[in-house]
Amino acid sequence: MIPYDHEHKKGNAMHTINELSTIINKALNNINILGEPKDLYRPIEYTLEFGGKRLRPVLMMLTCEMYGGKVEDSINAALGIEIFHNFTLLHDDIMDQAPIRRGRETVYKKWDTNTAILSGDTMFAMAYDYVRQTKPEVVPVIMKTFCQTSIEVCEGQQYDMNFETAAFTSIEDYLNMIRLKTAVALAASMQIGAAIAGAEETEQKNLYRFGELLGMAFQLQDDYFDAFGDEEKFGKKIGGDIIAKKKTYLYLKTLEIADNETARKLESIYMADPEDSDQKIKEVKAIFSSLKIPQFTQTLINKYFDDAMEIFHQLSPDAAHKETLNTFALLILNRDK
Amino acid sequence: MIPYDHEHKKGNAMHTINELSTIINKALNNINILGEPKDLYRPIEYTLEFGGKRLRPVLMMLTCEMYGGKVEDSINAALGIEIFHNFTLLHDDIMDQAPIRRGRETVYKKWDTNTAILSGDTMFAMAYDYVRQTKPEVVPVIMKTFCQTSIEVCEGQQYDMNFETAAFTSIEDYLNMIRLKTAVALAASMQIGAAIAGAEETEQKNLYRFGELLGMAFQLQDDYFDAFGDEEKFGKKIGGDIIAKKKTYLYLKTLEIADNETARKLESIYMADPEDSDQKIKEVKAIFSSLKIPQFTQTLINKYFDDAMEIFHQLSPDAAHKETLNTFALLILNRDK
Repeated sequence: MIPYDHEHKKGNAMHTINELSTIINKALNNINILGEPKDLYRPIEYTLEFGGKRLRPVLMMLTCEMYGGKVEDSINAALGIEIFHNFTLLHDDIMDQAPIRRGRETVYKKWDTNTAILSGDTMFAMAYDYVRQTKPEVVPVIMKTFCQTSIEVCEGQQYDMNFETAAFTSIEDYLNMIRLKTAVALAASMQIGAAIAGAEETEQKNLYRFGELLGMAFQLQDDYFDAFGDEEKFGKKIGGDIIAKKKTYLYLKTLEIADNETARKLESIYMADPEDSDQKIKEVKAIFSSLKIPQFTQTLINKYFDDAMEIFHQLSPDAAHKETLNTFALLILNRDK
Repeated sequence: MIPYDHEHKKGNAMHTINELSTIINKALNNINILGEPKDLYRPIEYTLEFGGKRLRPVLMMLTCEMYGGKVEDSINAALGIEIFHNFTLLHDDIMDQAPIRRGRETVYKKWDTNTAILSGDTMFAMAYDYVRQTKPEVVPVIMKTFCQTSIEVCEGQQYDMNFETAAFTSIEDYLNMIRLKTAVALAASMQIGAAIAGAEETEQKNLYRFGELLGMAFQLQDDYFDAFGDEEKFGKKIGGDIIAKKKTYLYLKTLEIADNETARKLESIYMADPEDSDQKIKEVKAIFSSLKIPQFTQTLINKYFDDAMEIFHQLSPDAAHKETLNTFALLILNRDK
């Protein structure tokens, strides 16, 4: 078990999001990854040093506290879900041949494909090993959720790869892909947190559905910001999806509503690799804007967000206990101002 | 849950090894792998059709019955351990660039590396999903065993890969590698079977240790048969390890005890890729025989087997309940005649 060295909160006071981030980052630093063979464990250590927003473990600890549970009961499962997330990035980077992640060389590039495969497999097993380390009576139910989520995330990655070469991708298929690849893991994190706290099954299910809808809004917001975000606030360069020819919601929606000529024009610009990528980004964004794609995207995000909040209001904890989750939802959708 | 359609045994009668093999093969055939996306699930279906000896699931169901448990309580966990085993073969085949397994193209060869990585990941998640489907009260303990075993099997594969390029591999390191890569999964299968049946913790631990020792004997026997076995009985072509330059116990023991000249001679023959591989096999075997390596190997196998049987005799079930495990141990070591 990971020692839980954060000062215990007095009474019913809940941790803030920042405090939970600090707790998970400390716990990640304290994991002992000095095992043998070094060739296997050094890339794992390297991967977990990458950083990241730690959304999933924070959500898990947060929902655990929301239902009256203790952070120390969910810290290991929270580590597990974060290790799982980093495992998926590690294997995705091999499949996508991505040389750089968060400004550093990816494992397959720094070492080699075999190392990335096997270190990833080990992280996957470690993820399960952490998730199971909680109150024994909840292990069967959280294992069920975690297993099904792992399978779905793999399915999402397969769809994502298929879309790269597919002649046509429907918006429905795209939304299902991001649900599997991103939303279900956020949903599962929340459900597992609540399960550890002993929440009722119906509450767990509602929370899962809330997480799924919030996850959809979050991913679509990410698609939107990639093209129309503020570079500084967004934290990464604008236009990455456009340069990488990613079939995002914005791209697919344009193909759906544009006249034939505009659609062919977008395709030809989008699928090209010009030297001047700034010009490509500018041209693509001009087409998006001319068809009001930013507005369509915001409308869909709002729909997912509103549906999520409708469920949120039905969740049983009192307003004080729900406040942190509310803040979290607004924060990840940049609605906190 | 997989429907358990095998006729229930009357009274305390235990299933034979053949009956257990039939049960696991039927259950594997009944798994529904018709999910979407097809690109992900078709390679999984293909992998599980490969066949194999099904040692691990048979051992699990067998030890479950040995401690008075029901086969239907262990059938899902048995499927899980078999899916896990096939996942490791699938990923190992990528890492070893092995084009053929059991007479058929491997997944990475028939499809591609990305497909093999992601289908393998999905199988790994499916393995956990089956292992957890048993009596809720034993899920925490069997998950602990299964997680630790998964991690150790990855460590074993890393050592195995390291040895390929290492200038020197000690016999101690080799034995630790086969313990991790092969023995612990047999041991874990037995322990999980007993745990599902509700066996005492000390019994589970003894059974694990028995499985580990038996697994060592089994792998060393495999090394031995690869060079000195009867092709028909062994079921595969003699000399495969020699052609593949595998640093087996036979090879490493020779380097340990041979004079310098003989050792260098073995190395130069062993690490060559001659057109006439039969001649290579003949020359290597002649060196092995001249140094009594077959006898050394048999002595070590006997030592592991005797140590295993010493623990076997201490296991608490009566002789009738232990008979199938005894038969199994003799069978996998070809001592049943």
